[in-house]
Amino acid sequence: MTSASPSEVSTYSVIGCGLIGASWTALASATGLRVQAWDPSWADAPRNVAQFQQRVAEAKTQLTELGLQGDGTIVICATLQDAVTGTDWIQENAPERIELKIALLKEIEAIIPAATMIASSTSSLLWSDLAAGLTQPKRFILSHPFNPPHLMPLVEIYGMTAEIRQRAADFYRCLGRVPVCLKREARGHIANRLASALWREAVNIVATGIADVADVDLALTNGPGLRWSVIGAHMAYHLGGGAGGIEHYLRHLGPSQERRWADLGAPQLTSEVCGLLIDGIAAEAGGRSIAELEQQRDAALISALKLRQSARNEPV
Amino acid sequence: MTSASPSEVSTYSVIGCGLIGASWTALASATGLRVQAWDPSWADAPRNVAQFQQRVAEAKTQLTELGLQGDGTIVICATLQDAVTGTDWIQENAPERIELKIALLKEIEAIIPAATMIASSTSSLLWSDLAAGLTQPKRFILSHPFNPPHLMPLVEIYGMTAEIRQRAADFYRCLGRVPVCLKREARGHIANRLASALWREAVNIVATGIADVADVDLALTNGPGLRWSVIGAHMAYHLGGGAGGIEHYLRHLGPSQERRWADLGAPQLTSEVCGLLIDGIAAEAGGRSIAELEQQRDAALISALKLRQSARNEPV
Repeated sequence: MTSASPSEVSTYSVIGCGLIGASWTALASATGLRVQAWDPSWADAPRNVAQFQQRVAEAKTQLTELGLQGDGTIVICATLQDAVTGTDWIQENAPERIELKIALLKEIEAIIPAATMIASSTSSLLWSDLAAGLTQPKRFILSHPFNPPHLMPLVEIYGMTAEIRQRAADFYRCLGRVPVCLKREARGHIANRLASALWREAVNIVATGIADVADVDLALTNGPGLRWSVIGAHMAYHLGGGAGGIEHYLRHLGPSQERRWADLGAPQLTSEVCGLLIDGIAAEAGGRSIAELEQQRDAALISALKLRQSARNEPV
Repeated sequence: MTSASPSEVSTYSVIGCGLIGASWTALASATGLRVQAWDPSWADAPRNVAQFQQRVAEAKTQLTELGLQGDGTIVICATLQDAVTGTDWIQENAPERIELKIALLKEIEAIIPAATMIASSTSSLLWSDLAAGLTQPKRFILSHPFNPPHLMPLVEIYGMTAEIRQRAADFYRCLGRVPVCLKREARGHIANRLASALWREAVNIVATGIADVADVDLALTNGPGLRWSVIGAHMAYHLGGGAGGIEHYLRHLGPSQERRWADLGAPQLTSEVCGLLIDGIAAEAGGRSIAELEQQRDAALISALKLRQSARNEPV
């Protein structure tokens, strides 16, 4: 069905070169692949090309720290046709607008052989939304990275068959990622559903005056967030059940967990709530710019990932 | 109002010596405090004393790795009276049964001076539930640690006045903790509300066949969990808004976030769902015992905490 297997992928096309596209480009080049990159904005604005190249260079510097020192050629393509010709794997990272993505995917499909793999980085659209317009949907997959994509290990994968999902997982593993395959499609996949569920309560805690934005974040990074970097939520409840594990937990504490669920909030992002969040973030940032915060986040992530590489902090 | 300030606390009473009590004992001793420990089960079962002492010794070994090498005397007390006499700070860790805790707190209050601080480790009860029976509620606080308490930095604090909350925060900071004060009481405080909200969706994902238990945990530890160990959920959305930060995010992506919230699940822990969780955990554990899993979790946590101490992985 597909022409690509991990060892066969030597040319990788990045279509849509904003933050996500720049991350994929850096990662693929750093693992030695040839990258053919294209963005529709480049024709009119050469400075967008320069910005892309700078982002890629910065990401590659960070990846060098993690031992990914490959230097695959990066080709800045003038047309979509150029970018997807002679490629093994296409990664689409257009804005999250369904009509735009469907049209782009159709356009790609009209150029390439029937077996070339096409992957969409979509965070919020469904496979079936995007595959509907394709003549060869079997070779089309979702592969959603987690921000910032060149650093975060997770890639969530969905495709039509278990075989194609496995093939995709093998490829992203070659890019140094940790692939997780969905058994059925779902809006927000896994990670953003979890993040969204947590943030709903984090907003509720601020909205109902239990704690300020900065204190919610402090509790998370020193409590559950730290723990979830080394052990999953399900496994944490297994260990929370003592010697009897998850069975004991569910039998004895399941009802109290259900009561706690019933007590969680369902806030709306009213202008008042948005005001609390914006003021709270300003207090937490304490004058640090977005760029400074991103640098601090990335430095901390790189340290955490190095620790994992040394196998002293492997998730349980 | 209170006799205790950080520098004044030299004797610390641990009342209720299960897992939480053993953790507090290890931590206080490792920071050089004298500990007076008592558990009602000890009178009838000397082997419970031995188990407690073993747990404390194991936790202290772990704390040594983190540089807490103090060795304050640990006194095994025969009576509650002995344990709370001549103390500066009382930490109550009885089972989460409201009548039991209220009776115990009253009993403690009848023995000690009016100004001695009493802290409850309760995870699920409210300050007002427990304070109702006290004659001096002002010196009574909640200070909830996060499991495993001697390793996890977070301690959530609630008390009657901002002054007493600040005083408590200062004390737990001396124990090497990261205190977070609630502005008003809430069932599950902050961290367990967040954990509960996330787990509800994690259960939903399994219950509705999107992914298996092990894959949900893998996505969490390589995605949002890893990120939340270095940056809070609110701050992550600030950076998710690009150059415009949280204001841009709320204006442009707030509505899609609300739609995502509406799409989250509200599962019940039916016997079928419990079966999926139990089987899924068995698959994820892959034959590893609870003790092995705990050891792996603790080793990974200690590595992560060492990295923070070296300031190369400070949360943003």
